[in-house]
Amino acid sequence: MIGYGLPHFPMTRASSVDDSSGVVARLIGVLGSERVHTHPLDLLVFGKDAGVTPGEAAVVVLPESTDEVAAVVRVATAAGVPVVARGAGTGLAGGAVPTSACVLVVLTRMNEIFEVDEVGRTAWVGAGLVNEALSNAVADHGLLFAPDPASQQTATIGGNVGTNAGGPHCLAEGSTIAHVLGMEVVTGDGEVMMVGGAAPDPLGYDLRGLFVGSEGTLGIVTRVLVRLVEVPPQLETMLISFVDVSDAARAVSEVIAEGVVPAALELMDGPMIEAVENFVHAGLPVGPGAVLLAEVSGHSVGVAADAALVREIAVLNGATEIRVARDEDDRALLWKGRKAAFGAIAQSAPDYYLNDTVVPRTRFVDVLDEIYAIAERYELRLLNLIHAGDGNFHPIVSYDAAEAGMTEKVIDATHEMVRAAVAAGGTLSGEHGIGIEKRDLMPEVFSADDLDAQERIRDAFDPLRLLNPGKVLPEGSRCLDRPPT
Amino acid sequence: MIGYGLPHFPMTRASSVDDSSGVVARLIGVLGSERVHTHPLDLLVFGKDAGVTPGEAAVVVLPESTDEVAAVVRVATAAGVPVVARGAGTGLAGGAVPTSACVLVVLTRMNEIFEVDEVGRTAWVGAGLVNEALSNAVADHGLLFAPDPASQQTATIGGNVGTNAGGPHCLAEGSTIAHVLGMEVVTGDGEVMMVGGAAPDPLGYDLRGLFVGSEGTLGIVTRVLVRLVEVPPQLETMLISFVDVSDAARAVSEVIAEGVVPAALELMDGPMIEAVENFVHAGLPVGPGAVLLAEVSGHSVGVAADAALVREIAVLNGATEIRVARDEDDRALLWKGRKAAFGAIAQSAPDYYLNDTVVPRTRFVDVLDEIYAIAERYELRLLNLIHAGDGNFHPIVSYDAAEAGMTEKVIDATHEMVRAAVAAGGTLSGEHGIGIEKRDLMPEVFSADDLDAQERIRDAFDPLRLLNPGKVLPEGSRCLDRPPT
Repeated sequence: MIGYGLPHFPMTRASSVDDSSGVVARLIGVLGSERVHTHPLDLLVFGKDAGVTPGEAAVVVLPESTDEVAAVVRVATAAGVPVVARGAGTGLAGGAVPTSACVLVVLTRMNEIFEVDEVGRTAWVGAGLVNEALSNAVADHGLLFAPDPASQQTATIGGNVGTNAGGPHCLAEGSTIAHVLGMEVVTGDGEVMMVGGAAPDPLGYDLRGLFVGSEGTLGIVTRVLVRLVEVPPQLETMLISFVDVSDAARAVSEVIAEGVVPAALELMDGPMIEAVENFVHAGLPVGPGAVLLAEVSGHSVGVAADAALVREIAVLNGATEIRVARDEDDRALLWKGRKAAFGAIAQSAPDYYLNDTVVPRTRFVDVLDEIYAIAERYELRLLNLIHAGDGNFHPIVSYDAAEAGMTEKVIDATHEMVRAAVAAGGTLSGEHGIGIEKRDLMPEVFSADDLDAQERIRDAFDPLRLLNPGKVLPEGSRCLDRPPT
Repeated sequence: MIGYGLPHFPMTRASSVDDSSGVVARLIGVLGSERVHTHPLDLLVFGKDAGVTPGEAAVVVLPESTDEVAAVVRVATAAGVPVVARGAGTGLAGGAVPTSACVLVVLTRMNEIFEVDEVGRTAWVGAGLVNEALSNAVADHGLLFAPDPASQQTATIGGNVGTNAGGPHCLAEGSTIAHVLGMEVVTGDGEVMMVGGAAPDPLGYDLRGLFVGSEGTLGIVTRVLVRLVEVPPQLETMLISFVDVSDAARAVSEVIAEGVVPAALELMDGPMIEAVENFVHAGLPVGPGAVLLAEVSGHSVGVAADAALVREIAVLNGATEIRVARDEDDRALLWKGRKAAFGAIAQSAPDYYLNDTVVPRTRFVDVLDEIYAIAERYELRLLNLIHAGDGNFHPIVSYDAAEAGMTEKVIDATHEMVRAAVAAGGTLSGEHGIGIEKRDLMPEVFSADDLDAQERIRDAFDPLRLLNPGKVLPEGSRCLDRPPT
């Protein structure tokens, strides 16, 4: 069981921090009382994300500049109080959920676009800027920010950085790490540091891979230098139906094997299609075992050739229907079903639990079969949404947590699914991060020596363990007492 | 002055290590006497790379497995003796040149290809495998290893990893970091650790950026899981002449601004063309101010469209001649001049010194003018070879070190060129690494806090500073005594 057994704090905790250490008073001194919140409801609301694990902060602050963040960190760490950074709270793995009484730094007010270099195709933005707001702001230059998590209308760039977020279009473009050139970071001692920069390969040790995906455990990213990409001048979007999900999976493998990397290649299985169709009536073909949403994009006539190849492979693998978007409205309709998936799931049952394991393409069909078998054995309702091009599974169990023992059953089943993916050479997470939810599964893919290396990094930047404690790494990963060899 | 003032060790040093600590005897115990060398000539030969800084090892060892490397590291570090790893010694910045009496670990015998996954397009290879040997070995699968440094016929994959090597085709494909999925690393305490893995985004902290480009200062990479790319089915190669080098530079900027990323875009200036033509008689058009070698590759008819666009932009910017390769022989001829550049330089004067700064594309022409002015002021012979697509300059000064004061003059001039690039928003190195040569220039681009972060990483993995000491970071980068704020 992971992510459970967290301490539930009494509502008076905020004032107890205030009493014992004067942290709240000093935070008010830095930010003013308008931007320091200790009301129990604020602590509850900001203490949650979009996942299943509850948490609660001791005090919530809303800084508006890097200097303010640095001052907040100095106040908190001087008093030995943990600091947790948070964006819009759309995370699914509990990465921004406090595991102990902390200062919760909400970065949503730091949503400025400081600079856009349309020739160099970069922008300096605040960590609190909403993902989609950036793409909207640079659309006039024919540019966009490529990572497109399902939550992009709400999620912040800082949150994308914290979890190394992905999205349907990250198949061809790469996840957030491929789009972050530099970061301004507030360290655990309240200093401001630059990580990376405009050069594609930074000098010395490239620290960007440490900070992107580190969920605020090494520092708080306050400003980000992002790479922008050109809005593709040509685009072809297709919705392809299959009777059997394994036919669709085989078609995906063959497309990739042919060397075509579509801009997106999304798979929904039968139950997922049905839920979506009941919710948004996007005109998805209810009945088939699976639909594949394929988008090919680029500069030239190559787009038409690639799209034709995708269709040819689909037909050879038993596609029963292929719809091609003729215009923007059509394209929006084809995407509507995919984008509404989480709303549809939420409508169909009170609760859902999802994982995001990654499976090698060669084992795609086997693992999918195994995941279905596990759901059947546990008698659970399973819907599948898959970033199929890179084998990033999102098996979603839809359930009612009010049923006795149901949550435990769902978590047990989901962990079996994760282990099936790992046993097939896959990994724990494609894009949602480790957070609380998967922390204790890390030893399934890392040896003691590997985890020790991870802990060394944490020790280097957060020796006191005051930056988002209890995340990413399981307890006791350091091998300090290893006998000499 | 950098890279000079190194201690010159007496020839008896090898036996002095042997005497005082028994390290050589213990190394012979691990590897046998055939693979442990202390002959002064071996120490001299293996102590140099292709750059200008001399060095010399205390003992040279040739391990054949990761376990042997681990055993060597344990023997050396237990005695407090530094360990320097080395591949073929083609480095240009002194990264593998010992700065103190050390155990020099030559990895060239670890040149095995352990596994090729032609579907997943990856291979596990030994660090000592020669770059080109890998591409040759996987050619039958239609695959290749994309990084193509000029030294690729000799340089090892491990050396490419150590310096994050680039090459002409890294414009579109990215430098070595984009092609390394995982690494087996021997740590400073002689343990074996895995960094990264087959998944595109590793869990936890992504340590790959630390190890790729770290020049053996954090551990010794013994095996590498590399990404392979498809041999492009279509290719168009062009040699374009310009009267003025700034016309060529402007054409490059416009090609990139149009969103076309050619597979390669290499610029040679007039003096460079002349030297090459005198050497290999590749039929380069002697006379013009610059030639641009442009290669466009891909899957589809898009290649022809992109190539036409490159030609159109070239003509609009004053191109005087465009040659298009009609077949493989033609293509080889067009590339011959570029690939023979270093041989040509070596033939034209006894010594050369080159830097590899990167300049933002928007400042390309200004910085080039400034570099020419600096060479003129110092009365030095300057040849330019530029990975133009990403603004990676290689200004080469060709000289005779036997002339009194000449080496110092060349280094002073080169540093002025580097500073001009940095002042224009550029950076110290595109692909050759920091090594000894650029170590002391690091504070030009890093603040004290930034360098401190780099040192924390080194402390995390090499607290005793026994792994390739004196490289990458300047002395005294840690801010341990900073007053509390």
